[in-house]
Amino acid sequence: MKAYQDLSREELLALQAQLVKEYEKAKERGLKLDMSRGKPSIAQLEMAGGFLDVLNSDSPMKAEDGIDVRNYGDMDGIPEAKKLMGDIMGVPAENVIVCGNASLSIMYDTVSRSVTHGVLGSTPWCKLDSVKFLCPVPGYDRHFAITQRFGIEMINVPMTPQGPDMDMVEELVSGDESIKGIWCVPKYSNPQGYTYSAETVRRFAGLRPAAKDFRIYWDNAYAVHHLYADRQDELPEILSLCAEAGNPDMVYEFCSTSKITYAGAGISAVASSKANLDEMRKCLTIQTIGSDKVNQLRHVRYFKDINGINAHMMKHAEWLRPKFEAVLEVLDRELGGLGIGEWTRPNGGYFISFDAMENCAKAIVAKCKEAGMVLTGAGATYPYGKDPRDSNIRIAPSFPTPEDMAMAADLFVLCVKLVSVEKLLAQ
Amino acid sequence: MKAYQDLSREELLALQAQLVKEYEKAKERGLKLDMSRGKPSIAQLEMAGGFLDVLNSDSPMKAEDGIDVRNYGDMDGIPEAKKLMGDIMGVPAENVIVCGNASLSIMYDTVSRSVTHGVLGSTPWCKLDSVKFLCPVPGYDRHFAITQRFGIEMINVPMTPQGPDMDMVEELVSGDESIKGIWCVPKYSNPQGYTYSAETVRRFAGLRPAAKDFRIYWDNAYAVHHLYADRQDELPEILSLCAEAGNPDMVYEFCSTSKITYAGAGISAVASSKANLDEMRKCLTIQTIGSDKVNQLRHVRYFKDINGINAHMMKHAEWLRPKFEAVLEVLDRELGGLGIGEWTRPNGGYFISFDAMENCAKAIVAKCKEAGMVLTGAGATYPYGKDPRDSNIRIAPSFPTPEDMAMAADLFVLCVKLVSVEKLLAQ
Repeated sequence: MKAYQDLSREELLALQAQLVKEYEKAKERGLKLDMSRGKPSIAQLEMAGGFLDVLNSDSPMKAEDGIDVRNYGDMDGIPEAKKLMGDIMGVPAENVIVCGNASLSIMYDTVSRSVTHGVLGSTPWCKLDSVKFLCPVPGYDRHFAITQRFGIEMINVPMTPQGPDMDMVEELVSGDESIKGIWCVPKYSNPQGYTYSAETVRRFAGLRPAAKDFRIYWDNAYAVHHLYADRQDELPEILSLCAEAGNPDMVYEFCSTSKITYAGAGISAVASSKANLDEMRKCLTIQTIGSDKVNQLRHVRYFKDINGINAHMMKHAEWLRPKFEAVLEVLDRELGGLGIGEWTRPNGGYFISFDAMENCAKAIVAKCKEAGMVLTGAGATYPYGKDPRDSNIRIAPSFPTPEDMAMAADLFVLCVKLVSVEKLLAQ
Repeated sequence: MKAYQDLSREELLALQAQLVKEYEKAKERGLKLDMSRGKPSIAQLEMAGGFLDVLNSDSPMKAEDGIDVRNYGDMDGIPEAKKLMGDIMGVPAENVIVCGNASLSIMYDTVSRSVTHGVLGSTPWCKLDSVKFLCPVPGYDRHFAITQRFGIEMINVPMTPQGPDMDMVEELVSGDESIKGIWCVPKYSNPQGYTYSAETVRRFAGLRPAAKDFRIYWDNAYAVHHLYADRQDELPEILSLCAEAGNPDMVYEFCSTSKITYAGAGISAVASSKANLDEMRKCLTIQTIGSDKVNQLRHVRYFKDINGINAHMMKHAEWLRPKFEAVLEVLDRELGGLGIGEWTRPNGGYFISFDAMENCAKAIVAKCKEAGMVLTGAGATYPYGKDPRDSNIRIAPSFPTPEDMAMAADLFVLCVKLVSVEKLLAQ
């Protein structure tokens, strides 16, 4: 296979003519494919078979602490749900508050509360001239949307296979008091599927931020979301590492069962130090009457414990893995050695990250759309929707069927080739 | 029955001696009663028998619009839940967004959003020197807690059996641009059980606020919570009245099923104009992945429609009514004509409001507590927990059993008598 860059102008023109033909044919098929979001497929929802049956009219409705889950009470969540969610994150139940169906809401609330009320006594961010967050890129668009919503300036930090560029993180955080946070998806990162190395996590825990109210937003969304039984990434537990490093309050960790049971009807949790949780509780007491404990109990009764969750996640893996592998097989076969794209090979999570030639991502996504396939918008993986190289595309294989997935991958590589040829011809 | 004020000092002293004896006996009984909150009893939770069975493994999981309720999507809530919640409030489904398990959270978020982002383009409240809310008193402590949390100044407005003093509301609202809202429980108000008259609602809809971002926070928490089948208060629908009066965006209305199905696992909703809802949607898109639609569908499948809810609420009425009547019977019998207290006789809702002689409420609540009965803290029904007359006590008959309720009422009137006598003797 010859790299496109090594082709002569004539060869490129001939290739273009052929690709255009293939593309016109693809358009005629009238495809309707959606790879835009990390949305579980119907098959994955069905994997939680019997989930709605474990709580019924005959079920005892008391939590371990004697509270009737149908009534008010237990602002923290029921004890057994705190334990279960704590086990997902590898932290003690006492460091956990169980919340509603979206960890995104906890993150939003945490930022919003910092804006209006500050963090453990610090000046509310709305009273400051400048508030900044570090954003490892490419990253998760919904994180960036929250900070953008509150007018927080976002600073790009490059990702590596070991995690964010920690030299840069350390330098920025220690030198600028206006930097108040960093968004992290430390395990099977969105979109690369990278897991932060032990060294990266250790350096995170040992940060010496200029701002006392600096916090690491540790979105452990894919903690148990492996694709393989025998090839699983390990992430060191950051709360204890922070405590050991003398930074007990520096991290908020988030997780949920959105991609374990039901995307729209799971439960979420936050883990942090007692001081941070107490501050949240002070707010929760005013903000809510407590989260839905019936759904918490349903989760505990269904899975029993973390072993139940791990076993369940292997069912997801068996369904997701062939789709990931199908995409990777097509990428390898069709784009390998062509020099027009690079991609990640994750062991878990929901995404493959694809980097096209510079200034090609938008055009590729547009070409795919024209032929009936919706991808995450190019740029979405960067703050403000601006990928400075216009290169990154997030591939989300979870929702389509395997058959659709194969068609999707074929169309995708075709569009990558076509746009790349056009790009090279225009140079 | 002679009014206490008309008793001679000797008569008062004799009465006191007798009451102290009774009180000591009551203390010896070692009661453990809780009338502190509007918490449904176990019996009421059990009324939703079969509620958890309507959705099981065999149930079709698609909403009317074809969305799988287990997955992401339908930020507004599923169409049939929008209709059901709209019917509770008497507004069209298109004016409704269905949210999570607590309408309190929608109220909190609405205030919080106004603080950080303003209201339909107005200056964010955090940028203003002064923001005020009107608070009809006595009222709901959790409302006051939200505004206090954000440093919003609260101004007491006296309640009447027809609703807040509208002369005062009109004058304040039209003359002060820093007044941004008013907390209302318009039907079976907390704690009085009053329902705003048609004239009051009409005057609300016709307000001419100085502040463009003034909003009525219309917490219709007890919309369908009647105590009688044949004696039900009617509340005019305020959204349409506001629109007719040229104030389409002036009201946010809230409701929930917390006291219909499960206190901790119901669903909530907000109703408002399209412009207001669109502003909420802009935020919700960032704040959440959507509310729990499985629980929304469960509610719709269980009740079918508003008739199902109304029939269900009659079961609650049959259980609550005897407890309300037991309290009222004891109050009438024991305190009638004594001149040491006044109380309301609601047709619905969760509370009876009791006004003791001035400067007696705290002492009564303390006396009750000493003998084993927890009441809502005196003052809780006022902003900042400060009842200027130290007179109002909220009685919440829902949680205790009827037997406990009778004991509780007996103890309550005993404490009222004892504290009143002491008060009169000290004058």
